[in-house]
Amino acid sequence: MSVGLAEIRQAAEAIRGQVVRTPLLRAERLSQLYGCELHLKLENLQITGSFKDRGACMKLQSLSDEQRRRGVIAMSAGNHAQGVAYHARRLGIPATIVMPEFAPFLKVERTRSFGARVVLTGDTLDASALAAREIAAAEGLTFVHPYDDPAVIAGQGTIGLELLEDLPDLDTLVVPIGGGGLCGGIAAAVKALKPGVRIFGVEVELFPSMYQVLHGQEPHAGGTTIADGIAVKLPGLITRELVRELVEEILLVDEISVEQAICALAEQQKLVAEGAGATGVAAIAAHAGRFQGQKVAVLIGGGNIDVRLLSDVLARGLVRDGRLVNLRVDIVDKPGVLAVITRIIGATGGNIMEVVHQRMFFNVPAKQAEIDVVVETKNAEHVEEIIRLLRAEGLNARVLASRLEG
Amino acid sequence: MSVGLAEIRQAAEAIRGQVVRTPLLRAERLSQLYGCELHLKLENLQITGSFKDRGACMKLQSLSDEQRRRGVIAMSAGNHAQGVAYHARRLGIPATIVMPEFAPFLKVERTRSFGARVVLTGDTLDASALAAREIAAAEGLTFVHPYDDPAVIAGQGTIGLELLEDLPDLDTLVVPIGGGGLCGGIAAAVKALKPGVRIFGVEVELFPSMYQVLHGQEPHAGGTTIADGIAVKLPGLITRELVRELVEEILLVDEISVEQAICALAEQQKLVAEGAGATGVAAIAAHAGRFQGQKVAVLIGGGNIDVRLLSDVLARGLVRDGRLVNLRVDIVDKPGVLAVITRIIGATGGNIMEVVHQRMFFNVPAKQAEIDVVVETKNAEHVEEIIRLLRAEGLNARVLASRLEG
Repeated sequence: MSVGLAEIRQAAEAIRGQVVRTPLLRAERLSQLYGCELHLKLENLQITGSFKDRGACMKLQSLSDEQRRRGVIAMSAGNHAQGVAYHARRLGIPATIVMPEFAPFLKVERTRSFGARVVLTGDTLDASALAAREIAAAEGLTFVHPYDDPAVIAGQGTIGLELLEDLPDLDTLVVPIGGGGLCGGIAAAVKALKPGVRIFGVEVELFPSMYQVLHGQEPHAGGTTIADGIAVKLPGLITRELVRELVEEILLVDEISVEQAICALAEQQKLVAEGAGATGVAAIAAHAGRFQGQKVAVLIGGGNIDVRLLSDVLARGLVRDGRLVNLRVDIVDKPGVLAVITRIIGATGGNIMEVVHQRMFFNVPAKQAEIDVVVETKNAEHVEEIIRLLRAEGLNARVLASRLEG
Repeated sequence: MSVGLAEIRQAAEAIRGQVVRTPLLRAERLSQLYGCELHLKLENLQITGSFKDRGACMKLQSLSDEQRRRGVIAMSAGNHAQGVAYHARRLGIPATIVMPEFAPFLKVERTRSFGARVVLTGDTLDASALAAREIAAAEGLTFVHPYDDPAVIAGQGTIGLELLEDLPDLDTLVVPIGGGGLCGGIAAAVKALKPGVRIFGVEVELFPSMYQVLHGQEPHAGGTTIADGIAVKLPGLITRELVRELVEEILLVDEISVEQAICALAEQQKLVAEGAGATGVAAIAAHAGRFQGQKVAVLIGGGNIDVRLLSDVLARGLVRDGRLVNLRVDIVDKPGVLAVITRIIGATGGNIMEVVHQRMFFNVPAKQAEIDVVVETKNAEHVEEIIRLLRAEGLNARVLASRLEG
């Protein structure tokens, strides 16, 4: 059973007014950076913060009265949980969400706040999924698969219809791939209406499972990725056929490029994207040559990033750009040296944030010491200038904890 | 000379396609928090990141051929600079931007990147403004005022037309006030078409200059505010009459509430707003009772917040919510105590980020010591649980650097 234009159009009718008709934003600043005409489809502005609202809403609408009465169950530590919980409550359908024991407290709380029964069980995602299937069978609940279900795929596919309404002369489309429901659904809609549009999928290097399956390799994925929303070990069976048939190529992106894309979206376009949601931009940045001069639309799939992680990613971005550095300076331990260092840094316009002057524990000879100075700087050239001036005063200085190191 | 519906409609025609037709987002999560139906007008998604694009674009379009040839000049350390520089380059008009000597490096660089000549002069904004007027006179340049100019006001007023197109049955509108161009322009458009809509202006407590002028008080403003985009000491003459006539009331918000609004927009709605841009949401949060059950639209005026500041504001928000705490624990300095502390915290699900175990410099008797532990926590109750358990082991623990302190 596959998904075609007719099913996607029906889904668009069924979910109209119940999910956000998300804007397509022309991204002027990123367009200049990457040399293409870039448009961002903002599914991070969706009600529960990701595109999952669409598939969940469509699946729930497709249930019989009896199925609605009995209720639904889903397994997810993330966006799918919220999408199902939110729309189930809205439609008066009892929802059970199975989450692994290690699910972050905030995601559990948010899912509960949408009125779902949350069952915390399983020390792996596979164990949780098995538990969910067992509860479904025992209680007669309908299982809502996160991607490998025609109704879910048709729901995500509605994004494709909106994209072509807003940008009919689109050349290229870039879509993140986890299980493949988003990419498969959108591709089904767009290729049916405009076969000339080229569609690229994106996976992270640690979870290249769709890429592997379509290249005849054994799927082999794992590790800690910032793009946890697309960290899927085995792609769907329905979705892999859609992707095989309709998608040009799958691009792989590394972790640093995803972090950089999160920073670029926040700083240049004023948008909060989660790791998975930013992978499309990461792919454009990494392969800018391929998209040169084209009209490109990129899916920003979700914005549900933990605030602490976002805060850290932004700070790490400053370090990467040379806008925040930790300088370590070797000194002879005599009075007045710190004053010399701070004067030199201050005169260049550097803003000292923190000084750690530790005589005892650094691994240096007695009568010598090291000072760590954290400085807000303008850019990498500014950092080099500070180091040059410090060395001219006989102070050996170097950068720690940044790409400039070593 | 005032600004009416006809001028604003002309402006809408003049700038069409040259600025972003920004989306009005239904903010589901904030609506639930504040008990009203809240819609956000996303001027932070505007090309240069704020509504200033509109007024600048309109003003530049209104110039004669001779004026265009000679060029324009503006004084701004912020969004107005970028708006003028960007649209001047696009329209082939030479632009000079005067910025105070203390303007942040990044804002200077961004303005230069838009092709403007940047003149850094003046140790106060007033001194820079004077310098700009002098250069304008000497070089025959047209001065582009940031708010007190009918063309600029008409440009900002185009937002009002879009608001009513997208939400015709709007009850209430909340708009930040700096010089008053944004609020005055929008009010002129909205009140002409729908006199029943109630419009509230918002200022920060440190810069309540429009409030003071309209209440017959001597304007008296100053200080360091996170809402620097609306830190205006003296409102415009044209704009104050528009606000006096059309605005219901001016609400004042404090610094903490603006920080909280920035966090709420990032976490709940996935949007980056600068301080000034978030003041409307701060006002709704502070006066939620007044807006209960109404259809409310709030202007998110801009998103140009320094990344480091955003990172810090998000982290401070976690501290405020009890999701990140610095615990100080008094200990008798003997082996094994740190292990006890970390075991207790770990058992509650707290995630230890940092431990500072400093024997020498705390102001405590010898043989005693203090340990600082930075912990990621779930909420304020979780923090209290940790403290209770530590005290049950005879360890005096307290929270530092948070509202819970003291």
